[in-house]
Amino acid sequence: MVQLRVKEAETLDFLKEAVSCVEVAKQSRIPIVINDRVDIAMACGADGVHLGQSDLPARQARMLLGSDKIIGVSCQTLEQVQKAYEDGADYVGSGAVFPTTTKKINSAIGLEHLYALCRGSPLPIVAIGGINASNVKEVLRERPSTLHGVAVISALFDQPDVCKATQELAEIISDVFNS
Amino acid sequence: MVQLRVKEAETLDFLKEAVSCVEVAKQSRIPIVINDRVDIAMACGADGVHLGQSDLPARQARMLLGSDKIIGVSCQTLEQVQKAYEDGADYVGSGAVFPTTTKKINSAIGLEHLYALCRGSPLPIVAIGGINASNVKEVLRERPSTLHGVAVISALFDQPDVCKATQELAEIISDVFNS
Repeated sequence: MVQLRVKEAETLDFLKEAVSCVEVAKQSRIPIVINDRVDIAMACGADGVHLGQSDLPARQARMLLGSDKIIGVSCQTLEQVQKAYEDGADYVGSGAVFPTTTKKINSAIGLEHLYALCRGSPLPIVAIGGINASNVKEVLRERPSTLHGVAVISALFDQPDVCKATQELAEIISDVFNS
Repeated sequence: MVQLRVKEAETLDFLKEAVSCVEVAKQSRIPIVINDRVDIAMACGADGVHLGQSDLPARQARMLLGSDKIIGVSCQTLEQVQKAYEDGADYVGSGAVFPTTTKKINSAIGLEHLYALCRGSPLPIVAIGGINASNVKEVLRERPSTLHGVAVISALFDQPDVCKATQELAEIISDVFNS
């Protein structure tokens, strides 16, 4: 699944970007969710939204989007995970696992806290934040049943060859899950 | 009618502000529209949205909001007015009539251009931008049938007594329309 994340853009520019990305994602049959903006997700026909703790609550997003769309929520605590579940979210993004440069304000939760969230979560969790080819095996060394994967930005887009970086990371993850 | 305009806020803060304003507006039976954010307008139960040229197009907003909600669009040209009309907008905001400090980027269209827009518009137009107690009579000296009113921000909120400023401005406008 891919998430479109656009910050500090005019709404119309965000929408145009979203429409382009949805077209490519649909051609590739990859689900795409839009960060924060439920209205843009609805207008561009995305598969859903990913919401931070300072975005629209999942409960309101679910009311607007209906039952068929995907809703993910970023959570750092079990209370937030529980609320996301009660609000009708489909999955949780938890992190930052490691420090990352993608977000301005950032406090890493670490692996043990990630695993604790996974063990207490009724929802699938995707680990995010500072995960890359050199540490993804470490992230997946414990695999609570709710730990469904990892999310990456800089691990791919800070690399000189994004395709190659994607293939390499996918292979490492595939090896871990098949081992 | 009032418009809630919140810039550079987190979505959740904007929503909380919107919920409070909608409550007060409903108690006072004053229609309230939300600037830019269609999702927030839907989540807070506002009466509609006001859209700039770099926001969601009115056509998409209409699809999301349904036929009962109010949609206003800021327009500076007749082409924009025509498009807003075809997209299903209910009214147009035109300006800035005079220079104003409310918006960062601002080019005043002047009174003659405002009247030209009104004469060519199939939609009601609200004049906006730099209008206050000292110049509102001048704005309303010609009254094409589509010129339905004026919108103000600084004329009220830059005054020491907002209530008094509102009453005084309302009286001036009422006098003009009753004369």
